[in-house]
Amino acid sequence: MAKGNGGAKKKAKSSKKSKKDAKAGPIVGVDVGGTKVLARLVDSETGEADGWAKASTPKTGLDDVFDTIEAVIDELLDGRASKDDLSAVGIGVPGPVDGDGLVQKCPNINGWDKPIQLSDVMGDRLGVDVVVSNDVNCGAVAEHRVGAGKGSDSLLAVFVGTGVGGGLVLDNKLVVGARGMVGEIGHMTVEPGGRPCGCGGAGHLECYAGRAGIDREARRRTEEGASPFLPDLVGSSPIKSRHIQAGVEAEDPLTLELVDDAVHALAQAIGNAASLLDIPVVVLGGGIVDRLGQTFLDDIAASPRFGGFGPDVTRLVLAERLDDAGAIGAALLAAQD
Amino acid sequence: MAKGNGGAKKKAKSSKKSKKDAKAGPIVGVDVGGTKVLARLVDSETGEADGWAKASTPKTGLDDVFDTIEAVIDELLDGRASKDDLSAVGIGVPGPVDGDGLVQKCPNINGWDKPIQLSDVMGDRLGVDVVVSNDVNCGAVAEHRVGAGKGSDSLLAVFVGTGVGGGLVLDNKLVVGARGMVGEIGHMTVEPGGRPCGCGGAGHLECYAGRAGIDREARRRTEEGASPFLPDLVGSSPIKSRHIQAGVEAEDPLTLELVDDAVHALAQAIGNAASLLDIPVVVLGGGIVDRLGQTFLDDIAASPRFGGFGPDVTRLVLAERLDDAGAIGAALLAAQD
Repeated sequence: MAKGNGGAKKKAKSSKKSKKDAKAGPIVGVDVGGTKVLARLVDSETGEADGWAKASTPKTGLDDVFDTIEAVIDELLDGRASKDDLSAVGIGVPGPVDGDGLVQKCPNINGWDKPIQLSDVMGDRLGVDVVVSNDVNCGAVAEHRVGAGKGSDSLLAVFVGTGVGGGLVLDNKLVVGARGMVGEIGHMTVEPGGRPCGCGGAGHLECYAGRAGIDREARRRTEEGASPFLPDLVGSSPIKSRHIQAGVEAEDPLTLELVDDAVHALAQAIGNAASLLDIPVVVLGGGIVDRLGQTFLDDIAASPRFGGFGPDVTRLVLAERLDDAGAIGAALLAAQD
Repeated sequence: MAKGNGGAKKKAKSSKKSKKDAKAGPIVGVDVGGTKVLARLVDSETGEADGWAKASTPKTGLDDVFDTIEAVIDELLDGRASKDDLSAVGIGVPGPVDGDGLVQKCPNINGWDKPIQLSDVMGDRLGVDVVVSNDVNCGAVAEHRVGAGKGSDSLLAVFVGTGVGGGLVLDNKLVVGARGMVGEIGHMTVEPGGRPCGCGGAGHLECYAGRAGIDREARRRTEEGASPFLPDLVGSSPIKSRHIQAGVEAEDPLTLELVDDAVHALAQAIGNAASLLDIPVVVLGGGIVDRLGQTFLDDIAASPRFGGFGPDVTRLVLAERLDDAGAIGAALLAAQD
């Protein structure tokens, strides 16, 4: 069964040092991504972060990933704090995490194709309580507690990157659901029977607003004779957010059209989600949003396809925590536990 | 700020009999609807209901409505329980109720066009703690606790009547939101730029699935030459659920087309909402669902427009509590408080 805190703790066993008397100690937050592992030291009371350490995510198997997490934490703590003083470690991962902290799989991390109780694995290695959460949920918590959504009881955070992920805070609590799938706004249908989705569905938000969907559609339309600006720019490599920004700045007609599709798809899905859940603030982040900035948000808010009760009741704001939202949020979730 | 229990209690003042020592006592649940006021006596532990009383909702002003609520409760209790033994009274009303129990307005009740702290008003009259909640939320709680959604941690209840309302239970808690508007699935946009909605928007679910939307569209299309079956049946009176059922049974082409529109609109909105919130069970009730039954649900589940992750992850079930869901749910919410 799901827990409202969105993570699950590995209780330090009696053979380890008990942290029961050190609850006010700092917390390490670690964001384990497909390309890098980033750690920050977070004050469990104020949420303020101090120091950072990072390393590339190994492609050589899960044991190496676990080694890297440990090494990054050691590097972060060096000269700042003793492992003995930590009250917990929070870890965010790019995959679904159920209410018991079981990570189902992480498609973007080599070798993570099976369920792993990461809280146990890392708890045993570190000798400290470990709370594991989904990275997007961590990002939502960071924005809610110390970012653009500070002060709002409820918040939807939408991260527009390769796909489109989301995290949901209702009445000041992260909601994760029994399977850890709450907030999957990227798979809301915005065009019934529309573009095919990686999940097997069709017409989902991320087919229009995610980089992978934009990439596929750009190549398809170019083959049909549309402007080859984007494929010319990247060749066979994936289109990145900076290329989309370049296409917009160059006023490439196909890029503008694809960004327009993204704007309307986001407007429809976000408006509907916000109306259904009575959410006054939606925080948008991720590569494409970082590149296109406030103009992109203004276009979404002005879209005639803004769903539900629309922009009258829902304010769109840019995410404030950029690269470290996952690490900070993971720490904040561990602090709550 | 919202409370997870969806209601707000009027504490019995010291001048009244304190119910502090009577927490195990029964609870009266009252459903105040546009046409009738219905009360049931509910066991606060088991949720089982005993006896009922009802009266027509007065059209002559709010004082008469309050008198009727009091009279219906007296009639219900007569010979069954003493008012002194009650641990609380729960009241469901057809309008938005914020987390403090303030009822904003009830458009279907004559004279209720301004905010009223009903928990105070009825608490003073009854001398017992009164918890006030939205009627649709009460229905969702009844289905979750003692109806078709029993045993599921999360549930979306969708009631298809004149409009389309919804209530949301996540991780075994009713979610209401700061303004009491959570679950307003009827105003999710399913057809951008589509049929005009009573709320001023367009293409909302209830324009396609609610009786009022079906009524408007039937008359519009009949004027354009479509089958006049429905208008012929009702004249200038509103089309009711039984008329829609009659049109389906007579295989009237326009009725079949309008019901088909309703099926696809519900499939899209329900699938999207369930995917966003990781909800395994959606309970459907209300006049149209009661009339069209399981076939209607099967058609929704089979719709190619079932949004999000679709019917693979979300089961549709018929509501089990019919007329008394609002009263039972109001009592259950009062029991929790």
